[in-house]
Amino acid sequence: MRALVKAAARPGLTLQQVPDPRPGEGEVLVRVLATSLCGTDAHIYRWDDWAQSRVHPPRIIGHELCGEVMELGPGVTTVSVGDYVAAESHLTCGICFQCRTGQAHVCRQYRILGIDLDGSFAESIVLPERVLWRTSRNVPPELACLQEPLGNAVYAALVEELAGRSVLITGCGPSGLFAAGVARVSGAAMIIGTDVGEYRMGLAKRMGVDHLLNAKQDSPESMAGAIRDLTHGEGVDAVLEMSGAPGALHLAFQTVKNGGRVSLFGIPTEPVSFDLTNEIIFKGIRVYGVTGRRLFDTWYRTAGLFKAGLDIRPVVTHTFRLEDFAKGFELIESGQCGKVVLIP
Amino acid sequence: MRALVKAAARPGLTLQQVPDPRPGEGEVLVRVLATSLCGTDAHIYRWDDWAQSRVHPPRIIGHELCGEVMELGPGVTTVSVGDYVAAESHLTCGICFQCRTGQAHVCRQYRILGIDLDGSFAESIVLPERVLWRTSRNVPPELACLQEPLGNAVYAALVEELAGRSVLITGCGPSGLFAAGVARVSGAAMIIGTDVGEYRMGLAKRMGVDHLLNAKQDSPESMAGAIRDLTHGEGVDAVLEMSGAPGALHLAFQTVKNGGRVSLFGIPTEPVSFDLTNEIIFKGIRVYGVTGRRLFDTWYRTAGLFKAGLDIRPVVTHTFRLEDFAKGFELIESGQCGKVVLIP
Amino acid sequence: MRALVKAAARPGLTLQQVPDPRPGEGEVLVRVLATSLCGTDAHIYRWDDWAQSRVHPPRIIGHELCGEVMELGPGVTTVSVGDYVAAESHLTCGICFQCRTGQAHVCRQYRILGIDLDGSFAESIVLPERVLWRTSRNVPPELACLQEPLGNAVYAALVEELAGRSVLITGCGPSGLFAAGVARVSGAAMIIGTDVGEYRMGLAKRMGVDHLLNAKQDSPESMAGAIRDLTHGEGVDAVLEMSGAPGALHLAFQTVKNGGRVSLFGIPTEPVSFDLTNEIIFKGIRVYGVTGRRLFDTWYRTAGLFKAGLDIRPVVTHTFRLEDFAKGFELIESGQCGKVVLIP
Amino acid sequence: MRALVKAAARPGLTLQQVPDPRPGEGEVLVRVLATSLCGTDAHIYRWDDWAQSRVHPPRIIGHELCGEVMELGPGVTTVSVGDYVAAESHLTCGICFQCRTGQAHVCRQYRILGIDLDGSFAESIVLPERVLWRTSRNVPPELACLQEPLGNAVYAALVEELAGRSVLITGCGPSGLFAAGVARVSGAAMIIGTDVGEYRMGLAKRMGVDHLLNAKQDSPESMAGAIRDLTHGEGVDAVLEMSGAPGALHLAFQTVKNGGRVSLFGIPTEPVSFDLTNEIIFKGIRVYGVTGRRLFDTWYRTAGLFKAGLDIRPVVTHTFRLEDFAKGFELIESGQCGKVVLIP
Repeated sequence: MRALVKAAARPGLTLQQVPDPRPGEGEVLVRVLATSLCGTDAHIYRWDDWAQSRVHPPRIIGHELCGEVMELGPGVTTVSVGDYVAAESHLTCGICFQCRTGQAHVCRQYRILGIDLDGSFAESIVLPERVLWRTSRNVPPELACLQEPLGNAVYAALVEELAGRSVLITGCGPSGLFAAGVARVSGAAMIIGTDVGEYRMGLAKRMGVDHLLNAKQDSPESMAGAIRDLTHGEGVDAVLEMSGAPGALHLAFQTVKNGGRVSLFGIPTEPVSFDLTNEIIFKGIRVYGVTGRRLFDTWYRTAGLFKAGLDIRPVVTHTFRLEDFAKGFELIESGQCGKVVLIP
Repeated sequence: MRALVKAAARPGLTLQQVPDPRPGEGEVLVRVLATSLCGTDAHIYRWDDWAQSRVHPPRIIGHELCGEVMELGPGVTTVSVGDYVAAESHLTCGICFQCRTGQAHVCRQYRILGIDLDGSFAESIVLPERVLWRTSRNVPPELACLQEPLGNAVYAALVEELAGRSVLITGCGPSGLFAAGVARVSGAAMIIGTDVGEYRMGLAKRMGVDHLLNAKQDSPESMAGAIRDLTHGEGVDAVLEMSGAPGALHLAFQTVKNGGRVSLFGIPTEPVSFDLTNEIIFKGIRVYGVTGRRLFDTWYRTAGLFKAGLDIRPVVTHTFRLEDFAKGFELIESGQCGKVVLIP
Repeated sequence: MRALVKAAARPGLTLQQVPDPRPGEGEVLVRVLATSLCGTDAHIYRWDDWAQSRVHPPRIIGHELCGEVMELGPGVTTVSVGDYVAAESHLTCGICFQCRTGQAHVCRQYRILGIDLDGSFAESIVLPERVLWRTSRNVPPELACLQEPLGNAVYAALVEELAGRSVLITGCGPSGLFAAGVARVSGAAMIIGTDVGEYRMGLAKRMGVDHLLNAKQDSPESMAGAIRDLTHGEGVDAVLEMSGAPGALHLAFQTVKNGGRVSLFGIPTEPVSFDLTNEIIFKGIRVYGVTGRRLFDTWYRTAGLFKAGLDIRPVVTHTFRLEDFAKGFELIESGQCGKVVLIP
Repeated sequence: MRALVKAAARPGLTLQQVPDPRPGEGEVLVRVLATSLCGTDAHIYRWDDWAQSRVHPPRIIGHELCGEVMELGPGVTTVSVGDYVAAESHLTCGICFQCRTGQAHVCRQYRILGIDLDGSFAESIVLPERVLWRTSRNVPPELACLQEPLGNAVYAALVEELAGRSVLITGCGPSGLFAAGVARVSGAAMIIGTDVGEYRMGLAKRMGVDHLLNAKQDSPESMAGAIRDLTHGEGVDAVLEMSGAPGALHLAFQTVKNGGRVSLFGIPTEPVSFDLTNEIIFKGIRVYGVTGRRLFDTWYRTAGLFKAGLDIRPVVTHTFRLEDFAKGFELIESGQCGKVVLIP
């Protein structure tokens, strides 16, 4: 079959023929119908420091996918040939404290699709039965493959409820855009968004953000002032920090109201210095580190949000054939896109 | 001024002239712009056993209202003349354990407007400053007066989050209808409703209920079966029991999924017998007794839900002038109405 | 090996030789060091209606145990020969909604040791690897085998925190006694206990209950009055209902304070009639159905409570050799015991 | 009466005669029986930058006290002459969002005793009725006055439950020592403590800390290794950060287990730089900013913990007469003390 392979320890990916994978015990062969590009894939494509330390070529990358079950390995009982599935990308150990207490999303020994084992930028993939997520056919492939990154946003947004609450989303990349859609359908009273680019602010508007602030044009003080005015001096009930940018982090802590909460999802590239006293302690806030998806509560909930009317189509700005992957990575570098989907 | 008075210990109410009330220390005079009929008022109108044991004529009744601040008593600082306000109807003691720990909704010594002191079926009312709730002028009086009963539904519905969850609402009287609206705007995945009358089922449809079951026509087994089918055999994540009917209570416990939750708000008129083992214990569910509104978290949240798009207009089926109150009480007896609003 | 077998559909058990069990794939052979009698076993011994409907002879019964790992089946990786283990008695399906969302204690298809498959009243038992719980050698066998029923009490007691809170425990059978020990070590401010027998009230005193009420001698009114007095008129913060007795259930709802919580663990033998309005709704309480143990959070927590000083030795009132099982069942019928442990 | 007054904008305090205070409307005159020194008082004594920016002489300082009610101002109904009381030191506004939603501990406009109005280092003090906390006579004055700072530790420790959980307390000053006592009585499985001085480590041992690490002698790596070993590689369930020291903060985030929680109470004197990705986000932890006490839930809970056996006597290392205040401040500077209590 054809697959996108990080063939050697240098930038780029290679589209090449690889052997067809076969399902072992407890495994399933899935034909990939759609697979989307994540920031992690861009790191590997670029071959930056993080990628060099983490990925060992040759490796088929990619971890956001949906597809159709083609063949069952021995002992598989929970899916059938022909099922339409997405997949949890974290293969958790099942035996650590976290896995045994319903917190597998912070399993201490999980492996990741497309990094620790071959991934989804290919015509087919073999997956353990237990990571498969049967999906309604009402959700077309270019959306179904997005349930994995969407799940991050569902978890970050709903770690505490949002119905009737005001929310600030810092960063309107794909995760922030998804979070906006989730907040909107979950009854947020007011959604304020920040970003540095006009393109993504346009998408944010379409995803239901009520008020947009441009972190490139406006000073931190003017943004904080605008948020204060919009909330009648109170600050917001919740902040979803989806960017990892230092300025966004400080804005989050400055504008969350006393007793409010902040979800930290965006990954800073450098250490960030905080005035804990005034940013966290005296405000009496709750700060949540958010990573991955609750297994499998987030997946059930995401399915429920689709039924509730969550519409993430505006986030899918580009769809390419597998061989045109380079265009997708260029778009990601430019910031002029939402999610980019590849069709193998 | 004119007021509806329970003048003597017998059925009915009398529209009569009463002295204009004057605000004392910490009190405020409010001109009533709209005031709505509650089931409690109907009990007092009918003069049933409960009413006879609880109400001491003469008494101006009514406790759901909005209006305009006309005059401030000494020491009032938090509202101004001309403010547009609704009111919490429970006057809590402020000093019991519950009041001192943020649980004033279950204050052990609260007094109720229109029962323990004169109420809102009048041209004006005097209220303690601390129960006033400033309301956006975007909410017209016939909706603003409904925040008190709507708050009950907000609290019952959102005692745990509903975003992405399936919910059964048993009873589509005004409280159930409000709850449906709240569940809809808060991202419920699926809303199933039950009632015994076509009229209210029609309103429920307009409030966003996805599937309606007629408890008069369908057997308990067939309703339970339908809910099982709609939820792929799982049962619902949450039940909002808004009727107090024994059949609805058993349906609630039968169809909530293992590990789910049930909010009990409807008031049964008789003791009800339960199989605790199978209805509660082996299911591992959480049951919440819900009464009143969280002071004042529910009020803030209700305001937030209006901003999120909560539309309760379909529930307001009738508006009368104060003197036509008898028509309103007849409608309540008939069940052919949602909320009935009086304009003094 | 020797085992206690429900050999035929009639009262009693038979001590007989049975084939030595052998571990299959993912299974482990455990030599039973101690195994304790549960009320469920007494039902099966007596062969009452419930037992007749649920158990299919021949069956080795018993489900509370500890022992030593003797042999590993193929594929077992998480325990070693010689490990000292107890076992979760619920074999959960792993694939239902509940199992996939960290709520396996309410799995919809679980099987129970000693009922659905052969149990622990034997010299050895074969168990799936995933139900084994490695236990500190500091906990001697006659206590280690009690972690399963103790876990019920841990879950019931700590479903909400108890530190600094007042608690009523209705029923001082083994579950209530365990709950008292848990409440004591977890910082309960005051523990009130009820029972109908002097023997168990004596044990309750030893487990840390501060005030004991005799439900056989005292009227419901006098017990409620005593609890009111002990709590300065407030009622208790939490009730752990461990008896299933109707009188205890009503006492629970009558004496829990407004805004408090009730854990329902005891199994009523008949339907019970409630005044939901005054017992649950107007009190604004939370009611938890409690069954089983959180997998495996309760097990970790139980281990932690042992380290914190939880001492359950007073509950173990009798220890017999396996062949003297009849004495144990007689004691359970008499109520003149705490837990009875068998040593195979 | 005699009082300790910050008489002018310079270091030190002056013991001087001041007019006897008289209670106004809603106020109460309390004779101070005991009043303790807080780090805040030491800042004011030293007259450091923070004190210069915040305190306006002349001012009687001090905010931790207990005493006896001597006289009631008009309108006071909830206490009587002769009552034994302590006092919440935060005078909250009662009307902001936080105050109206049960979060008065993060009131946005609260005033503090001994800073914004005259405090407790005096023979008497006038206090608003609503901040008084009636205390059991079983608690002697030198402990009763400590309920305010103890409450901080109760809130920090029990923001999530500790029963059966392992906990790290960084910093064994008075707040850390109190937290150790709270954790011990609340059923913590294991308490690890850190500090830089032998004196306080000795007190920590007496307060129930199981394992002590000396942050002055041991490297961060060796401390983290020791904690890892003590927790079998898992890390601790909870960290109570009571020091504000950068090293302690990093140790907290490094050693809390994935999915655990950190309470931040200690106040850093400078900004601190964090690797959010690895310290918070990928660990999926919850971080709580903790300030003040929940009004009045923490006070009720503290009273309950005393009943449960909480013994804070080892923390009270020194008691002086009011005129010997300078000795107390010297001890605080030296770190060779727990709490210092003054008897007016």
